[in-house]
Amino acid sequence: MRMAELSRESGLPVATIKFYLREGLLPPGERTSPNQARYSDEHVRRLRLTRALIDVGGLSVASARAVLDAMEEGPIAALATAQDAMVEPIGAEDQWSRERYEELVQNMGWEVYADSAAAQHLRDLLVTARNAAGIDFVADWSAYAEHADAVARHDLAWIAGLPDLEGTISGAVVGTVLGAAYFNALRMLAHQHYSKQRWPNASLPPAE
Amino acid sequence: MRMAELSRESGLPVATIKFYLREGLLPPGERTSPNQARYSDEHVRRLRLTRALIDVGGLSVASARAVLDAMEEGPIAALATAQDAMVEPIGAEDQWSRERYEELVQNMGWEVYADSAAAQHLRDLLVTARNAAGIDFVADWSAYAEHADAVARHDLAWIAGLPDLEGTISGAVVGTVLGAAYFNALRMLAHQHYSKQRWPNASLPPAE
Repeated sequence: MRMAELSRESGLPVATIKFYLREGLLPPGERTSPNQARYSDEHVRRLRLTRALIDVGGLSVASARAVLDAMEEGPIAALATAQDAMVEPIGAEDQWSRERYEELVQNMGWEVYADSAAAQHLRDLLVTARNAAGIDFVADWSAYAEHADAVARHDLAWIAGLPDLEGTISGAVVGTVLGAAYFNALRMLAHQHYSKQRWPNASLPPAE
Repeated sequence: MRMAELSRESGLPVATIKFYLREGLLPPGERTSPNQARYSDEHVRRLRLTRALIDVGGLSVASARAVLDAMEEGPIAALATAQDAMVEPIGAEDQWSRERYEELVQNMGWEVYADSAAAQHLRDLLVTARNAAGIDFVADWSAYAEHADAVARHDLAWIAGLPDLEGTISGAVVGTVLGAAYFNALRMLAHQHYSKQRWPNASLPPAE
């Protein structure tokens, strides 16, 4: 298909597609003349995935490109890069948070990458929640780890059911990024529900 | 305390504190001379909360200010503003996603704000996950809603145990923003654990 049809199929303006081509998020089409190229269904799929990561997953263009590149290297690399793209450690962790982290991981029986961005971010969070609101997440919010464990078991079982390697890789990426956003949105809706029960006479200001 | 001590206590550079004062995230101190002011423990608490929202919660300065302002209006306003600060609807929802959303909310028995940013974002996510990876979150990932419901019940029970109104409000805000980040980090660690079981011979590339 031509650029105009790629734009129609993907629902994206031509300018956006050209930007992604320049930035390397989309591989070039097959050149058919000095200023025309032909694109395939693969380009449409890639554009949809790119928009999912950026628009609703909240990834930067640079992070999305890193994830798309890592997908060439297999599911584990894709998963790790998607995780790295989602969190930014700030180096707030201290001795206390490292001990709480160790206790958590041991309690859960998790074998994890202690130097990963996710693990660093978690230790940042522990010390920040304590300093900002006196919360000891590991002790007081232990239900979270159990539910996260159950959700992750669900995710890996779901990935195991995907039909081929390509589907497994894009499933791992979309599941990681959009799955996180999905859980977050569900948690907020459930908060609305239970807040209404707790404060029945209050009303939420309308969303902007 | 003077600015220098506020900086020491909060662990923030003076320039950052002055920026927050200018931007209205921190109320002014009590003026003691034309170019000196005195700050209180309340300022330290406020700075810690601000950094928690921005650094590990991922909120923009503008969103953090909106949340801090809403905290003056009570727990429901604080909760709603924290939710709005965390998601940005993109208007991708369509008839299909509205129907899936209705089915989800009905199945869960949730009474929610259908026009809230969280609900709009969820409908955006449903259509995006379908287009990018053929996932029907509501049908195929129904476990998520159950776990989100349980987590939200935990959160409201935890809030109910907080000793006073001020604590309830900052608890609602920190719980909403940092709790989301905490669940996300836990889910990623659990993914690492179960991925190692599924692909025992693969190794993650080191984090940057």
